[in-house]
Amino acid sequence: MTDQLPAHRRQPLSLDTALASFDALWSPRIVTHVNDYDVRVAKVEGEHVWHVHDDTDEFFLVLDGELEIALREPAGERTVTLAKGSVFVVPRGTEHRPAARERAAILVFEPTGTLSVGDRHEEVPDHVDATTGHALQA
Amino acid sequence: MTDQLPAHRRQPLSLDTALASFDALWSPRIVTHVNDYDVRVAKVEGEHVWHVHDDTDEFFLVLDGELEIALREPAGERTVTLAKGSVFVVPRGTEHRPAARERAAILVFEPTGTLSVGDRHEEVPDHVDATTGHALQA
Repeated sequence: MTDQLPAHRRQPLSLDTALASFDALWSPRIVTHVNDYDVRVAKVEGEHVWHVHDDTDEFFLVLDGELEIALREPAGERTVTLAKGSVFVVPRGTEHRPAARERAAILVFEPTGTLSVGDRHEEVPDHVDATTGHALQA
Repeated sequence: MTDQLPAHRRQPLSLDTALASFDALWSPRIVTHVNDYDVRVAKVEGEHVWHVHDDTDEFFLVLDGELEIALREPAGERTVTLAKGSVFVVPRGTEHRPAARERAAILVFEPTGTLSVGDRHEEVPDHVDATTGHALQA
Protein backbone atom coordinates (compact mmCIF):
# COMPACT_ATOMS: atom_id res chain seq x y z
CA MET A 1 0.00 0.00 0.00
CA THR A 2 1.61 3.23 -1.11
CA ASP A 3 0.06 5.11 1.78
CA GLN A 4 2.37 3.22 4.07
CA LEU A 5 5.49 4.10 2.11
CA PRO A 6 7.81 6.81 3.37
CA ALA A 7 7.09 10.15 1.71
CA HIS A 8 10.24 10.08 -0.43
CA ARG A 9 9.10 6.84 -2.08
CA ARG A 10 5.67 8.19 -2.96
CA GLN A 11 7.08 10.58 -5.58
CA PRO A 12 9.37 10.02 -8.58
CA LEU A 13 13.04 10.60 -7.92
CA SER A 14 15.44 12.26 -10.34
CA LEU A 15 18.65 10.25 -10.60
CA ASP A 16 20.54 13.52 -11.16
CA THR A 17 19.17 14.81 -7.85
CA ALA A 18 20.15 11.56 -6.15
CA LEU A 19 23.68 11.76 -7.55
CA ALA A 20 24.01 15.42 -6.55
CA SER A 21 23.31 14.51 -2.91
CA PHE A 22 26.68 12.83 -2.26
CA ASP A 23 30.31 12.95 -3.33
CA ALA A 24 31.86 9.66 -2.19
CA LEU A 25 33.28 7.39 -4.88
CA TRP A 26 32.56 3.64 -5.05
CA SER A 27 29.97 4.09 -2.29
CA PRO A 28 26.56 3.09 -3.65
CA ARG A 29 23.34 4.77 -2.53
CA ILE A 30 20.03 2.91 -2.51
CA VAL A 31 17.59 4.81 -4.70
CA THR A 32 14.62 2.49 -4.27
CA HIS A 33 13.56 -1.11 -3.71
CA VAL A 34 11.82 -3.48 -6.13
CA ASN A 35 10.54 -6.48 -4.19
CA ASP A 36 13.71 -7.81 -2.54
CA TYR A 37 16.04 -6.04 -4.95
CA ASP A 38 17.80 -2.67 -4.63
CA VAL A 39 18.30 -0.04 -7.27
CA ARG A 40 21.53 1.70 -6.35
CA VAL A 41 23.51 4.55 -7.90
CA ALA A 42 27.21 5.22 -7.46
CA LYS A 43 29.86 7.70 -8.53
CA VAL A 44 32.99 5.95 -9.67
CA GLU A 45 36.53 6.81 -10.72
CA GLY A 46 39.68 4.70 -10.69
CA GLU A 47 39.64 0.98 -10.00
CA HIS A 48 37.33 -1.05 -7.81
CA VAL A 49 38.58 -4.44 -6.57
CA TRP A 50 38.42 -7.88 -8.15
CA HIS A 51 35.47 -9.65 -6.58
CA VAL A 52 32.84 -12.34 -7.12
CA HIS A 53 29.16 -12.59 -6.32
CA ASP A 54 28.65 -16.31 -5.96
CA ASP A 55 24.87 -16.27 -5.94
CA THR A 56 23.69 -13.33 -8.01
CA ASP A 57 24.06 -11.64 -11.36
CA GLU A 58 24.83 -7.92 -11.26
CA PHE A 59 23.27 -5.41 -13.68
CA PHE A 60 25.09 -2.21 -14.67
CA LEU A 61 23.70 0.82 -16.52
CA VAL A 62 26.04 3.73 -17.18
CA LEU A 63 24.29 7.03 -16.44
CA ASP A 64 27.24 9.28 -17.20
CA GLY A 65 30.80 8.78 -18.42
CA GLU A 66 32.26 5.41 -19.30
CA LEU A 67 32.73 2.23 -17.28
CA GLU A 68 35.15 -0.62 -17.91
CA ILE A 69 34.52 -4.03 -16.38
CA ALA A 70 37.39 -6.50 -16.38
CA LEU A 71 36.19 -10.13 -16.37
CA ARG A 72 38.04 -13.34 -15.54
CA GLU A 73 36.31 -16.03 -17.59
CA PRO A 74 37.21 -19.65 -18.24
CA ALA A 75 38.63 -18.62 -21.62
CA GLY A 76 40.77 -15.86 -20.08
CA GLU A 77 40.58 -12.26 -18.99
CA ARG A 78 38.83 -9.59 -21.03
CA THR A 79 37.47 -6.10 -20.48
CA VAL A 80 34.14 -4.75 -21.66
CA THR A 81 33.62 -1.00 -22.04
CA LEU A 82 30.20 0.51 -21.36
CA ALA A 83 29.49 3.92 -22.86
CA LYS A 84 26.85 6.19 -21.36
CA GLY A 85 23.45 4.58 -21.84
CA SER A 86 24.82 1.05 -22.13
CA VAL A 87 23.97 -1.96 -20.00
CA PHE A 88 25.79 -5.15 -19.06
CA VAL A 89 25.17 -8.04 -16.69
CA VAL A 90 28.04 -9.75 -14.90
CA PRO A 91 26.91 -13.37 -14.44
CA ARG A 92 27.02 -14.87 -10.97
CA GLY A 93 30.32 -16.55 -10.23
CA THR A 94 32.34 -14.41 -12.63
CA GLU A 95 35.24 -12.56 -11.01
CA HIS A 96 35.15 -8.93 -12.14
CA ARG A 97 36.64 -5.51 -11.48
CA PRO A 98 34.83 -2.32 -12.49
CA ALA A 99 36.93 0.73 -13.29
CA ALA A 100 36.53 4.22 -14.73
CA ARG A 101 39.34 6.30 -16.20
CA GLU A 102 37.37 9.48 -15.51
CA ARG A 103 34.48 10.26 -13.20
CA ALA A 104 31.37 8.28 -14.13
CA ALA A 105 27.97 7.47 -12.65
CA ILE A 106 26.30 4.07 -12.71
CA LEU A 107 23.03 2.41 -11.73
CA VAL A 108 23.02 -1.19 -10.50
CA PHE A 109 20.22 -3.67 -9.77
CA GLU A 110 20.96 -6.46 -7.36
CA PRO A 111 19.35 -8.31 -4.47
CA THR A 112 19.01 -6.33 -1.25
CA GLY A 113 21.96 -7.16 0.99
CA THR A 114 24.42 -7.74 -1.86
CA LEU A 115 27.84 -6.56 -0.70
CA SER A 116 29.65 -4.12 -3.01
CA VAL A 117 32.82 -6.22 -2.81
CA GLY A 118 31.08 -9.55 -3.29
CA ASP A 119 31.42 -12.79 -1.39
CA ARG A 120 35.12 -13.12 -2.19
CA HIS A 121 37.49 -10.29 -3.02
CA GLU A 122 41.06 -9.07 -2.93
CA GLU A 123 42.12 -6.70 -0.16
CA VAL A 124 39.85 -3.68 -0.12
CA PRO A 125 41.75 -0.38 -0.48
CA ASP A 126 40.68 2.76 1.37
CA HIS A 127 39.04 4.28 -1.68
CA VAL A 128 36.49 1.45 -1.98
CA ASP A 129 33.50 1.25 0.36
CA ALA A 130 32.56 -2.32 1.37
CA THR A 131 28.83 -1.85 1.87
CA THR A 132 25.40 -3.23 1.13
CA GLY A 133 24.46 0.31 0.04
CA HIS A 134 23.72 3.47 1.96
CA ALA A 135 20.38 5.18 2.35
CA LEU A 136 19.93 8.23 0.19
CA GLN A 137 19.63 11.35 2.34
CA ALA A 138 16.35 13.10 1.64
CA MET B 1 29.68 -18.99 -16.99
CA THR B 2 29.79 -16.19 -19.51
CA ASP B 3 31.25 -18.50 -22.16
CA GLN B 4 27.89 -20.23 -22.29
CA LEU B 5 25.97 -17.01 -22.81
CA PRO B 6 24.67 -16.11 -26.26
CA ALA B 7 27.04 -13.76 -28.06
CA HIS B 8 24.76 -10.72 -27.70
CA ARG B 9 24.89 -11.05 -23.94
CA ARG B 10 28.66 -11.17 -23.80
CA GLN B 11 28.99 -7.52 -24.84
CA PRO B 12 27.48 -4.32 -23.46
CA LEU B 13 24.30 -3.16 -25.16
CA SER B 14 23.45 0.44 -25.94
CA LEU B 15 19.88 1.21 -24.92
CA ASP B 16 19.66 3.67 -27.83
CA THR B 17 20.58 0.85 -30.21
CA ALA B 18 17.99 -1.39 -28.59
CA LEU B 19 15.30 1.27 -28.91
CA ALA B 20 16.22 1.94 -32.55
CA SER B 21 15.58 -1.72 -33.41
CA PHE B 22 11.79 -1.55 -33.15
CA ASP B 23 8.89 0.85 -33.60
CA ALA B 24 5.93 -0.71 -31.81
CA LEU B 25 4.40 1.26 -28.92
CA TRP B 26 3.58 -0.31 -25.54
CA SER B 27 5.37 -3.47 -26.65
CA PRO B 28 8.32 -4.10 -24.30
CA ARG B 29 11.56 -5.70 -25.48
CA ILE B 30 13.71 -7.75 -23.11
CA VAL B 31 17.17 -6.19 -23.02
CA THR B 32 18.74 -8.62 -20.56
CA HIS B 33 18.10 -10.86 -17.58
CA VAL B 34 19.27 -10.44 -14.00
CA ASN B 35 18.72 -13.69 -12.12
CA ASP B 36 14.99 -14.30 -12.59
CA TYR B 37 14.22 -10.69 -13.46
CA ASP B 38 13.98 -8.96 -16.84
CA VAL B 39 15.22 -5.56 -17.87
CA ARG B 40 12.84 -4.38 -20.59
CA VAL B 41 12.62 -1.23 -22.69
CA ALA B 42 9.52 0.16 -24.37
CA LYS B 43 8.44 3.02 -26.54
CA VAL B 44 5.25 4.59 -25.30
CA GLU B 45 2.73 7.21 -26.36
CA GLY B 46 -0.90 7.66 -25.37
CA GLU B 47 -2.54 5.68 -22.60
CA HIS B 48 -1.83 2.16 -21.42
CA VAL B 49 -4.60 0.35 -19.50
CA TRP B 50 -5.46 0.30 -15.82
CA HIS B 51 -3.94 -2.87 -14.40
CA VAL B 52 -2.58 -4.46 -11.25
CA HIS B 53 0.39 -6.71 -10.54
CA ASP B 54 -0.76 -8.61 -7.47
CA ASP B 55 2.59 -10.13 -6.59
CA THR B 56 5.30 -7.77 -7.75
CA ASP B 57 6.49 -4.21 -7.58
CA GLU B 58 7.28 -2.59 -10.94
CA PHE B 59 10.25 -0.27 -11.47
CA PHE B 60 10.17 2.50 -14.09
CA LEU B 61 13.06 4.63 -15.37
CA VAL B 62 12.33 7.22 -18.03
CA LEU B 63 15.02 7.14 -20.73
CA ASP B 64 13.51 9.80 -22.94
CA GLY B 65 10.47 12.07 -22.79
CA GLU B 66 8.04 12.13 -19.90
CA LEU B 67 5.85 9.45 -18.37
CA GLU B 68 2.73 9.86 -16.27
CA ILE B 69 1.53 7.06 -14.02
CA ALA B 70 -1.99 7.29 -12.65
CA LEU B 71 -2.39 5.43 -9.35
CA ARG B 72 -5.50 4.26 -7.52
CA GLU B 73 -4.55 4.28 -3.86
CA PRO B 74 -6.64 3.81 -0.73
CA ALA B 75 -6.66 7.59 -0.27
CA GLY B 76 -7.83 8.20 -3.84
CA GLU B 77 -6.50 8.58 -7.34
CA ARG B 78 -3.37 10.59 -8.14
CA THR B 79 -0.90 10.89 -10.99
CA VAL B 80 2.87 11.05 -10.73
CA THR B 81 4.94 12.56 -13.53
CA LEU B 82 8.38 11.18 -14.30
CA ALA B 83 10.75 13.43 -16.23
CA LYS B 84 13.62 11.95 -18.22
CA GLY B 85 16.09 10.39 -15.82
CA SER B 86 13.54 9.86 -13.06
CA VAL B 87 12.57 6.60 -11.40
CA PHE B 88 9.44 5.36 -9.64
CA VAL B 89 8.25 2.05 -8.24
CA VAL B 90 4.58 1.07 -8.39
CA PRO B 91 4.02 -1.12 -5.33
CA ARG B 92 2.48 -4.54 -5.82
CA GLY B 93 -1.29 -4.47 -5.57
CA THR B 94 -1.63 -0.85 -6.68
CA GLU B 95 -3.83 -0.34 -9.72
CA HIS B 96 -2.02 1.93 -12.17
CA ARG B 97 -2.12 3.27 -15.73
CA PRO B 98 1.01 4.56 -17.45
CA ALA B 99 0.57 7.24 -20.12
CA ALA B 100 2.68 9.59 -22.21
CA ARG B 101 1.40 12.74 -23.91
CA GLU B 102 4.24 12.55 -26.43
CA ARG B 103 6.54 9.76 -27.52
CA ALA B 104 8.72 8.54 -24.64
CA ALA B 105 11.03 5.63 -23.88
CA ILE B 106 11.15 3.74 -20.61
CA LEU B 107 13.11 0.97 -18.90
CA VAL B 108 11.34 -1.41 -16.54
CA PHE B 109 12.67 -3.99 -14.15
CA GLU B 110 10.36 -6.81 -13.08
CA PRO B 111 10.31 -10.59 -12.60
CA THR B 112 10.60 -12.66 -15.77
CA GLY B 113 7.12 -13.66 -16.89
CA THR B 114 5.43 -10.51 -15.61
CA LEU B 115 2.59 -9.66 -18.01
CA SER B 116 2.55 -6.09 -19.34
CA VAL B 117 -1.15 -5.77 -18.48
CA GLY B 118 -0.81 -7.31 -15.03
CA ASP B 119 -2.90 -9.99 -13.34
CA ARG B 120 -6.11 -7.97 -13.58
CA HIS B 121 -6.85 -5.26 -16.12
CA GLU B 122 -9.53 -3.44 -18.03
CA GLU B 123 -10.22 -4.40 -21.66
CA VAL B 124 -6.99 -4.22 -23.63
CA PRO B 125 -7.26 -1.92 -26.68
CA ASP B 126 -5.51 -2.72 -29.96
CA HIS B 127 -2.69 -0.26 -29.33
CA VAL B 128 -1.51 -2.10 -26.19
CA ASP B 129 0.48 -5.34 -26.45
CA ALA B 130 -0.38 -7.90 -23.73
CA THR B 131 2.98 -9.64 -23.46
CA THR B 132 5.64 -10.92 -21.08
CA GLY B 133 8.15 -9.07 -23.28
CA HIS B 134 9.60 -9.78 -26.70
CA ALA B 135 13.14 -10.80 -27.50
CA LEU B 136 15.29 -8.04 -28.87
CA GLN B 137 16.25 -8.76 -32.48
CA ALA B 138 20.02 -8.81 -32.81
